[in-house]
Amino acid sequence: MRVLGLDPGLRRTGWGIIDQQGSRLSHVANGTLLSDNSLSLAERLMQLARALEKVLEEHRPETAAVEETLANRNPSSTLKLGMARGVALLVPASAGLPVSEYLPMIVKKSVVGTGHAGKEQVQMMVERLLPGCALASADAADALAVAICHAHHMGSLRSWAPAAGRAR
Amino acid sequence: MRVLGLDPGLRRTGWGIIDQQGSRLSHVANGTLLSDNSLSLAERLMQLARALEKVLEEHRPETAAVEETLANRNPSSTLKLGMARGVALLVPASAGLPVSEYLPMIVKKSVVGTGHAGKEQVQMMVERLLPGCALASADAADALAVAICHAHHMGSLRSWAPAAGRAR
Repeated sequence: MRVLGLDPGLRRTGWGIIDQQGSRLSHVANGTLLSDNSLSLAERLMQLARALEKVLEEHRPETAAVEETLANRNPSSTLKLGMARGVALLVPASAGLPVSEYLPMIVKKSVVGTGHAGKEQVQMMVERLLPGCALASADAADALAVAICHAHHMGSLRSWAPAAGRAR
Repeated sequence: MRVLGLDPGLRRTGWGIIDQQGSRLSHVANGTLLSDNSLSLAERLMQLARALEKVLEEHRPETAAVEETLANRNPSSTLKLGMARGVALLVPASAGLPVSEYLPMIVKKSVVGTGHAGKEQVQMMVERLLPGCALASADAADALAVAICHAHHMGSLRSWAPAAGRAR
């Protein structure tokens, strides 16, 4: 099963893709999607959406997980984070992928073993769990952590499948 | 010029379309897009996106304007509002429409004449400015007000055009 993890942000959205075979995980690719803050919000969201669509086309993940980043203290940052998270949820869902969400604490617990791990610990464990992965950025490391967390939790109730025959 | 106005919300997104010919405005259609809150966020955003795409296909607006709703006091509501606003910006932009944003105060000032008008005053003025429009909801009325505001401001610096030849 090929898993996409996303750490959404309007300026920078980290992405990471891993393959899961039983309990074996392996790194496929990771990177950072950037939006140009000299553009309008609509244009920036389009940049992120188009770039994310390219990642989906290139690597063909079968399932996606998004970090459920908590609201910022600054309401205007929270609004922007919401917009970026909206894109991170909408694009894979529109491509027919089941999309799950995980709180940062759950991701850390799953990868490091404690919900209060620091960024460096997460990064170190990602590199240990996915030998040979060259991390594009801290956001890409977080995204890979989300993918690892999802691989661990796969089949949990938090995921949903956009089944073709499902009654709406 | 056919103008789409949007008043975004995760549960309910109001939309309204008007035609502008010189200083003459006329009502085309209005309605409310709903998302089912028993579904996941990704599914709800997809519902809104697909419904909004249908509105675009059916009525073919040439330009869009979105209400720049202010952050709520509740951070979790602000995040959700951000997601809905993200969809409201992304879908028309992806369809190639220029997308503008207007603060609620500017919309009220443009439609009623004062930035501190109540919802009922806005609704009354929308009905007066667009004779014969049957308002689907309060959100749809707000969306028509945004469209009217945009018609008044058309050509301002706040709008952007996703011009094909534009350097990025």
